[in-house]
Amino acid sequence: MSVMEETAATFRVERLEGEFPLERGGSLRDVEIAYHTFGRLNDRRDNVVWVCHALTANSDVADWWPHTVERGCFLDPERWFVVCANIIGSCYGSTGPTSVDPSAGEPYYGDFPRLTIRDMVNGHRMLADRLGIGRIHAMVGSSVGGFQALEWLAMEPERFSRLILIATDAKASPWSIAVDETQRMAITADATYGERRHDAGAAGLAAARAIGLLTYRGPWGYNATQRDRAPEDDRVPDSHRACTYQRYQGEKLVRRFDAYSYMTILDAFDTHDIGRGRGGVDRVLASIDVETIVIGITTDIIFTPGEMRSLARRLPRAVYREIESEFGHDGFLVEHAQLNALLKNFLE
Amino acid sequence: MSVMEETAATFRVERLEGEFPLERGGSLRDVEIAYHTFGRLNDRRDNVVWVCHALTANSDVADWWPHTVERGCFLDPERWFVVCANIIGSCYGSTGPTSVDPSAGEPYYGDFPRLTIRDMVNGHRMLADRLGIGRIHAMVGSSVGGFQALEWLAMEPERFSRLILIATDAKASPWSIAVDETQRMAITADATYGERRHDAGAAGLAAARAIGLLTYRGPWGYNATQRDRAPEDDRVPDSHRACTYQRYQGEKLVRRFDAYSYMTILDAFDTHDIGRGRGGVDRVLASIDVETIVIGITTDIIFTPGEMRSLARRLPRAVYREIESEFGHDGFLVEHAQLNALLKNFLE
Repeated sequence: MSVMEETAATFRVERLEGEFPLERGGSLRDVEIAYHTFGRLNDRRDNVVWVCHALTANSDVADWWPHTVERGCFLDPERWFVVCANIIGSCYGSTGPTSVDPSAGEPYYGDFPRLTIRDMVNGHRMLADRLGIGRIHAMVGSSVGGFQALEWLAMEPERFSRLILIATDAKASPWSIAVDETQRMAITADATYGERRHDAGAAGLAAARAIGLLTYRGPWGYNATQRDRAPEDDRVPDSHRACTYQRYQGEKLVRRFDAYSYMTILDAFDTHDIGRGRGGVDRVLASIDVETIVIGITTDIIFTPGEMRSLARRLPRAVYREIESEFGHDGFLVEHAQLNALLKNFLE
Repeated sequence: MSVMEETAATFRVERLEGEFPLERGGSLRDVEIAYHTFGRLNDRRDNVVWVCHALTANSDVADWWPHTVERGCFLDPERWFVVCANIIGSCYGSTGPTSVDPSAGEPYYGDFPRLTIRDMVNGHRMLADRLGIGRIHAMVGSSVGGFQALEWLAMEPERFSRLILIATDAKASPWSIAVDETQRMAITADATYGERRHDAGAAGLAAARAIGLLTYRGPWGYNATQRDRAPEDDRVPDSHRACTYQRYQGEKLVRRFDAYSYMTILDAFDTHDIGRGRGGVDRVLASIDVETIVIGITTDIIFTPGEMRSLARRLPRAVYREIESEFGHDGFLVEHAQLNALLKNFLE
């Protein structure tokens, strides 16, 4: 039995004909949104759980978030109709820089317009409407998935009954923007970035991914997993396991992503601010009158436990819970047992 | 009155004629070591405090470590004869990749041999001997300065009466090596690296510095100092203070350093392992029977407080003290008041 049958997964692409206006001005034409669903929408249409994916992930939640979309887990497809859409600007089926620009007949590459998180969420909203989804039982967002979740809640708080926020924030912090800017510096240090081909800036992209990885993993997770084996002699080692690992992770992303999509997404993430044009972050958070669980990770250096506690305090109906992990921000992908234990009951 | 007069500072370059053998094999010829001294060697020659500098610093301690080499501070030049030498492989007067290779008549650039921390310390030792310095009252090393300090203590524990270790370790950790490798990836993503000119790989070097800075500063320091001003309108901001800051810091290093020296130093730091060929780190630490103070910084994500406590536990005569700071690893450069309070008495 394939995974598709086990989880009743579907993958489709929805085409939004016409103009798709963008927050920074301009528009995209005939935007496509790729999405997965797991499980079945029940007759009362009240079992929708929407998952927003992070940075370089895709709509296949069962693939990138192990042991969550399974019987008995918190995204049990026998109980919930789980939907996840690939964000626009990405390269997993939704319109992005490597898509063909209908007006030019060739890929956008560097000509792709600048996006914001609000543009991405507008794509999700239009998709939900097309799918006949009105009320959404629960919204789930971890990391930059949580940026989209909070943005959507800021737009339509009454549409949701539950909100799950894992290792995320209501506004991009100076530190997370600095991490993104540093990645942009690495990509543009590669002078091939800008050439009109899919693998332009590949060496820069690999370095950028390695930068990201440092911050996702943090010192504790890294030191726990990447120690060199004991040396066999007294010579100075030529390389280290940590070096191989950073290069491997960089090259792995280059094989499945492209520098244009990566730059587009980083740029959009820096614009994240649910308070923009709405009277500030605190005011918007206070308006999200939805039962919420905020989950921090003990060793996360991107969204620190202190910031997560502060986020929970400013949401009127939030509880704060913490995952014990040495894997830093990546703990949200690794600690499925703790997440399932916290979230199964919360969803009911 | 100039700073030189105030602190009785001197700057000189010592030339070590002949072959300087290197741990990885091969040698350098006619190595030059640039050094500063502050204060005066007393008649009993028992007031020497040797300071080892970190990564991209130089021999001018009074310049890079504010409010330490001053009357009443722990490196008071009226009390101590403070010596600091520029490490070989660097570009502040000691022999490095931009020095002229005597056998080729032009700069080494990419042909400069690979160094280790032991090579750097051997340079320091030869300089001390030339200066007629026998016993050293105290060795001070912070960050990768501490790598050199510990290495020298491992070579000649009986030469020292006191050891001050700030935010450092006895062996490069997988995490710190990963940070270095990521910087190397950024530098080599710039295809101009390898060209025989002083500014080869400049864009890559700027990105590398920005990577380093992330880890020196950490999320708390960054978020405390680089917040955007409140927006004046509802438009999406075009840039952020954090972006400008990262670029500025990258460009600032490019103006005062070069990619070849940077790569040489990163590479050497990854080789740091006081246990190599000596029966392991713990055994060497146990042999350093010197009164030691180990200082950690609460928010340091390169040398975490946990690692610093572990280092202190393995040194037979060490006490552990912690500096409160939100500036991460850079706290050692910023929190001079706490350092002076801890170290003035320790030195006496």
